[in-house]
Amino acid sequence: MATISPASQLFTLVNVFTVAPGHQKELCDHLTEVTEELIRHMPGFVSAAFHLSHDGEHVVNYAQWRSQADFRAMHADPRLREHFDYCRSVSRPKPIFCDVAYVYDAEPDGE
Amino acid sequence: MATISPASQLFTLVNVFTVAPGHQKELCDHLTEVTEELIRHMPGFVSAAFHLSHDGEHVVNYAQWRSQADFRAMHADPRLREHFDYCRSVSRPKPIFCDVAYVYDAEPDGE
Repeated sequence: MATISPASQLFTLVNVFTVAPGHQKELCDHLTEVTEELIRHMPGFVSAAFHLSHDGEHVVNYAQWRSQADFRAMHADPRLREHFDYCRSVSRPKPIFCDVAYVYDAEPDGE
Repeated sequence: MATISPASQLFTLVNVFTVAPGHQKELCDHLTEVTEELIRHMPGFVSAAFHLSHDGEHVVNYAQWRSQADFRAMHADPRLREHFDYCRSVSRPKPIFCDVAYVYDAEPDGE
């Protein structure tokens, strides 16, 4: 489970992958494997949540890191070069670095 | 606070707004106002989380609804027509309807 809150002050990456036809599930499985084996053990990793779009055209990763520096260190790790090459071969990633501004939820104690 | 989990089986909307220069904060404030006043009181609303991209070019809404039907009912509500017109006047929304496939987090009890 991942949680979204402005109070956590995490570095958030929303990465929208536009996938080549028929590659959505394959890319999502690949992302989960690499996260399971490598990324989640890296310093500053907080969470990653992989989503499948209903139209089959996108995979969305909602990821959280302790800091942008931790994210950059992961991204520069040579063990992940092949992983990023694969992602680019089956999709067009659009990474959006952002901060949480506001969260509303339906539970009164969560506001 | 919002939570992301495949077990919740919610309808998830990731809406990436590409904003006209200088309109990022204004759009985000508008979205929070409409959510505060109207949307969060609608049937099936679970959460909305608004994000500001570091490059100033995007607002990302990570929203959860009980079902797609609840989301559609909100979207068709005539009280929100002016709101959607405003959003389109200052941004290009890209709504992605999706399901959560996998979530990893750094806390062992959250896996």
